[in-house]
Amino acid sequence: MLSLAVSAVSLALIFTNESFQPIQAAIGFAILGYQMTTSLIPAVSTAFLKRGLGGRDLSKPGKPLIPETMGIIPAITYMFVMILFIPFMFIFGSDQNGLSGMFPHKMLSTYLGCLLSLMSMILLGLMDDLFDIRWRHKFLLPAVASIPLLIVYYVDFGVTAILVPHFLQQWLHLETNSVDLGYLYYFYMASVAIFCPNSVNILAGVNGLEVGQTVVIAGLLLLNDLFYLSIGTIQSPSYSIHLLSMCFLIPFVGVALGLLKYNWFPARVFVGDTWCYFGGMVFAVVGISGHFAKTLMLFFLPQIVNFVYSAPQLFGLIPCPRHRLPKFNEEDGLLYNSYTEYGQVDATSEKGRRNPPLNSRLVPVVLFLERLKLIGVVKEYHDGEWVIHKTTNLTIINLFIVWTGPIREDKLCTLLLATQFATGFFMLVLRHTLAPMLFGFDNSWSMLNRYN
Amino acid sequence: MLSLAVSAVSLALIFTNESFQPIQAAIGFAILGYQMTTSLIPAVSTAFLKRGLGGRDLSKPGKPLIPETMGIIPAITYMFVMILFIPFMFIFGSDQNGLSGMFPHKMLSTYLGCLLSLMSMILLGLMDDLFDIRWRHKFLLPAVASIPLLIVYYVDFGVTAILVPHFLQQWLHLETNSVDLGYLYYFYMASVAIFCPNSVNILAGVNGLEVGQTVVIAGLLLLNDLFYLSIGTIQSPSYSIHLLSMCFLIPFVGVALGLLKYNWFPARVFVGDTWCYFGGMVFAVVGISGHFAKTLMLFFLPQIVNFVYSAPQLFGLIPCPRHRLPKFNEEDGLLYNSYTEYGQVDATSEKGRRNPPLNSRLVPVVLFLERLKLIGVVKEYHDGEWVIHKTTNLTIINLFIVWTGPIREDKLCTLLLATQFATGFFMLVLRHTLAPMLFGFDNSWSMLNRYN
Repeated sequence: MLSLAVSAVSLALIFTNESFQPIQAAIGFAILGYQMTTSLIPAVSTAFLKRGLGGRDLSKPGKPLIPETMGIIPAITYMFVMILFIPFMFIFGSDQNGLSGMFPHKMLSTYLGCLLSLMSMILLGLMDDLFDIRWRHKFLLPAVASIPLLIVYYVDFGVTAILVPHFLQQWLHLETNSVDLGYLYYFYMASVAIFCPNSVNILAGVNGLEVGQTVVIAGLLLLNDLFYLSIGTIQSPSYSIHLLSMCFLIPFVGVALGLLKYNWFPARVFVGDTWCYFGGMVFAVVGISGHFAKTLMLFFLPQIVNFVYSAPQLFGLIPCPRHRLPKFNEEDGLLYNSYTEYGQVDATSEKGRRNPPLNSRLVPVVLFLERLKLIGVVKEYHDGEWVIHKTTNLTIINLFIVWTGPIREDKLCTLLLATQFATGFFMLVLRHTLAPMLFGFDNSWSMLNRYN
Repeated sequence: MLSLAVSAVSLALIFTNESFQPIQAAIGFAILGYQMTTSLIPAVSTAFLKRGLGGRDLSKPGKPLIPETMGIIPAITYMFVMILFIPFMFIFGSDQNGLSGMFPHKMLSTYLGCLLSLMSMILLGLMDDLFDIRWRHKFLLPAVASIPLLIVYYVDFGVTAILVPHFLQQWLHLETNSVDLGYLYYFYMASVAIFCPNSVNILAGVNGLEVGQTVVIAGLLLLNDLFYLSIGTIQSPSYSIHLLSMCFLIPFVGVALGLLKYNWFPARVFVGDTWCYFGGMVFAVVGISGHFAKTLMLFFLPQIVNFVYSAPQLFGLIPCPRHRLPKFNEEDGLLYNSYTEYGQVDATSEKGRRNPPLNSRLVPVVLFLERLKLIGVVKEYHDGEWVIHKTTNLTIINLFIVWTGPIREDKLCTLLLATQFATGFFMLVLRHTLAPMLFGFDNSWSMLNRYN
């Protein structure tokens, strides 16, 4: 009954849109997407488990088996909704010169290229969830998925210049404020496409975190878009770009919240790599097609910090256990730090591998980091020097537990998401105060005039 | 070594294309697709079996377990190749007015809409193979997958008129030779999209038949395209439409032959519903985007006959066992007819259901069909009337065995494919001799002037 009423609201938003502007329709489609997602997920859970798509939640008493790869459902729902969105974007209500708040017809093929890239990402992410593609290869899957968008960009648009800061312009004696990167620009875009999905995938392992971070990042991008819409007019070239970005992101938030309902602590479903890749790719697609990939990066600060912080383990400077998730204590229901133990058999390794002791030159570094509260250490004073027995695993999830002490899973997730929002918002403010000084103007006003 | 040489040939075909025309590049991409398919299939077979994607081949001694759903590999390969094809179609070598044998830029969004529909079909087909979607629902999956194409058609082009024959035009007192169907046209196109994939799916169960029929139909469509190219000039409107159709079909034949190599008797892989849906959708997409959906139907004659012939079983007039495949005899290695038994327990039913006796009013019909050699019957003369014990299952596969007697699987498949080609070729000739008489002209010359 309630759900019927909500459907009615969503349809009303989509269709009763007199001074047609796409944001109202986007909100309608977001509600529709939320509803489809929340009704499909419980309907298909059993079928997923039956097909072997399930995983154990190690941070719950009894380690229950719950459906895995469930991110495919909101992802497919999103594609469905975005395809239904097309006529509302490109036909209904647009006037002769295509400027009534709708999109010029020329943007259609770019839009379709974006959808093709997202679809490719879903398919490849699903392949990864089904067949466990090797780490080295899966890292590159987003680059493959970005090919449709890059090719359509090349055929349809082909601007390969980026803006450079004032001081760089003077220093390099450039005559204009932009540099044409030529073919390098496509490598740059492919890197963005590799970066976003893998970033989301790397900060994972706590109920709600994978989906939550995509919701927060989408929210930050929406704030950025709103900023441009508020200072621009329909005639300014950045206007339609940021309007399009909102049309991508609002329905995305709808389906993501639908998934979050089931993935939030205590999770009833896992989202799978499909979701991380798909969510990240939505951001990449929005940034690339909107020509604001650099701004996009600002919202991934926790992911970047997590990557840098993880680097000593990822690149083998200190041992890296198979899982680096926090450790669940059934007695108090809290998450504790997980550790890398030196000179001990690695309990997470299948082969019973023994970790080497910590390199003696790294001991002072570890002790220094401990003093800065950047790592948790279990040590012993022995024969006039410190022996490091174990250190916390190098993920920001563990780092937060170093700071907070044992913590319940949902509180930890909330804290991580709040940090994501706070750092992103700070960068957003910086972006619109500092960048104009560096670049000499805000590129909302100067952006390479694309579609007009 | 050989494969390297073949790759070199394919790349040479793609890149050394001076008077650039897309057919040469399409052949290059077809070879590339064939190579990718044949090298990927053996590489992923084990992973598919491990994930539970395997099925038993009931028509082989020992009923070996072989990988299932393998059609996903050529399908993804096809998408990859068709995306790489884009710049060769829409940029390289096209002159100012876009008429150097390449495609006008305006066709790009239609092309992308086609790719989106194919991608959707792959994803939905895969869902079906993974989760065994109910028959009633899966029947409609192609309609959902066709939505992107229909919407792009609506936004981009929107011609909803079809040509009517001369006599109909006079009879209905029409002023023009076309009728605008309006929104009905979209139902018509959706029906085409439902028809083609389900047609392919319905004629299945013999090694090589699913893939083989898609190769034969693609071949027939290519002959039709070649006919138009041979009578038209670059300026005639149907020219670029049929050129585009060839660009879709040539690489399709490449990946299909790659799959056929592994699916031909004795099959080392099964293709899955994914392939049937995908292959059928390629034809639907080509027919819809090229506005020749009616001609397309002509090449599906065996599928249509199979459907009509199956109808009494599909609609419950006589009992329908769960499987209607021919029966394999391990002793002589041949396929025999399978039967529906009346008044007996159905051996294929899980619930041990007992079939009712044949309705007495149907007995003379069955005896008449037997006389026409249209059904195989096991009967007994009892108390002055015939008692029908069992009749062959109503598929054209069984019908062929009624005609040939027990037959080896590959011979049966070849016979079915040869019939498909022969009937299709006959219809093709009829199409270009009879249709001009009915319609007053061949629509290759009059086709609604779309892109020029």
